[in-house]
Amino acid sequence: MKRGTSISMWPVQGLPMIRPGDNLATLVARAVRRSRRTILARDVLVVAQKAVSKAEGRTVVLADVVPGAKARELAGVTGKDPHLVEVILTDARRVVRSSPGVLIVETHHGFVCANGGVDQSNAAPGVAVRLPVDPDASAERIREGLAAEFGHAPAVIVSDSHGRPWRVGSVGIALGAAGIAPLTDLRGSADLVGRTLHATVIATVDEVAAAASLVMGEADEGIPAAVVRGVAYEVGQGGVRAMLRRPERDLFR
Amino acid sequence: MKRGTSISMWPVQGLPMIRPGDNLATLVARAVRRSRRTILARDVLVVAQKAVSKAEGRTVVLADVVPGAKARELAGVTGKDPHLVEVILTDARRVVRSSPGVLIVETHHGFVCANGGVDQSNAAPGVAVRLPVDPDASAERIREGLAAEFGHAPAVIVSDSHGRPWRVGSVGIALGAAGIAPLTDLRGSADLVGRTLHATVIATVDEVAAAASLVMGEADEGIPAAVVRGVAYEVGQGGVRAMLRRPERDLFR
Repeated sequence: MKRGTSISMWPVQGLPMIRPGDNLATLVARAVRRSRRTILARDVLVVAQKAVSKAEGRTVVLADVVPGAKARELAGVTGKDPHLVEVILTDARRVVRSSPGVLIVETHHGFVCANGGVDQSNAAPGVAVRLPVDPDASAERIREGLAAEFGHAPAVIVSDSHGRPWRVGSVGIALGAAGIAPLTDLRGSADLVGRTLHATVIATVDEVAAAASLVMGEADEGIPAAVVRGVAYEVGQGGVRAMLRRPERDLFR
Repeated sequence: MKRGTSISMWPVQGLPMIRPGDNLATLVARAVRRSRRTILARDVLVVAQKAVSKAEGRTVVLADVVPGAKARELAGVTGKDPHLVEVILTDARRVVRSSPGVLIVETHHGFVCANGGVDQSNAAPGVAVRLPVDPDASAERIREGLAAEFGHAPAVIVSDSHGRPWRVGSVGIALGAAGIAPLTDLRGSADLVGRTLHATVIATVDEVAAAASLVMGEADEGIPAAVVRGVAYEVGQGGVRAMLRRPERDLFR
């Protein structure tokens, strides 16, 4: 992969509140055209998970959820709403850590994150939003929709914000990806003094998601999509699924 | 913090190989001017740790290092050069994980990372490069140097690439920062439906470092600095030091 070129990125302004059944590709294309921009074939469209989940109807009314024994127990430990904990457990493969205010699980997708990505911000009162069932597939559907709109298919990343074990603060990461190789493998490249580089695999889709987060609204601005132009990515398949560590290689279970 | 504006970034082309005693601010200013660009007061200059360490003379000749008993033992476990392990241990507060091919330590700064950030790529044969003693102070010195060159002080981030526990691939992160608040605290902001957001603290300097990584050379291109323009950051102090989790809040020791 060649680096060394300039990158620019801009938020997709003017998207409406997303509702179940919305076609995100159509809404994004409309907003992009209204702002007199376009999306090029080598651009990356980053879409916030929350918008994708809403379009896919991944909302749940907490009052309709019946907390089981494990949810009630973990609600006691964490101080969280037992209905919310039940939803988190439904989407979880295992509980990784629980303590007051903290519930970290591994989701069915394999993401290790706070509350399994289930979130109530920017949702109606009493409603929680779950992660997409298959974020790589979500990215692929949006990509196909954009190809129909623009005549070419940019890369698409479905992004979220994750905390990290040893640092305060969250960063944008990729939950799903289509049309872009998730990792850039520099192993075998010679470094400046001609030695082969070891262990230099770059999580390109996560870096793009983090970059896009800088122009996307987290809160009151509410801009759930951004276009990133100039990233020297490799077109590739595999999605984010391919970059999750297998349990036997996870040193922090 | 306002988001929603466009961001652009470009690599600082034409920097020479960095040598001990080099003034990075002067070299960056010269390269920027030669490329007919400038650095504005609200820009962020991201400089790769390796360049900072070399300028600060943080190199060590491995043949001059005498491995102690612990280094020899860990070299056996990990398969790494005992001289290199000795350097890693010298800069470490504790060993976090060790297994074949893997040595994760917490450095004296508080960074949890592979090999304590000690690296041999882009160094002369038999030479290892250690992290700066105080990356926040390094960033501040570069910032003061740029202020002398340009008449205003941009933010400065000293960046590195770190792996993550549950995902394959490394991402750019900040080791040091000056003139930029490391975290953006959105708690207390109202979300789109007027509810107060909880636990939304964004690691702005890490997102900027990840973004800059997309235009900086890791290997043969060798571009150890980038300018990021348009980030709506808060001017602030504290540095990266302020964003490291205190041990009692670390759930993954």
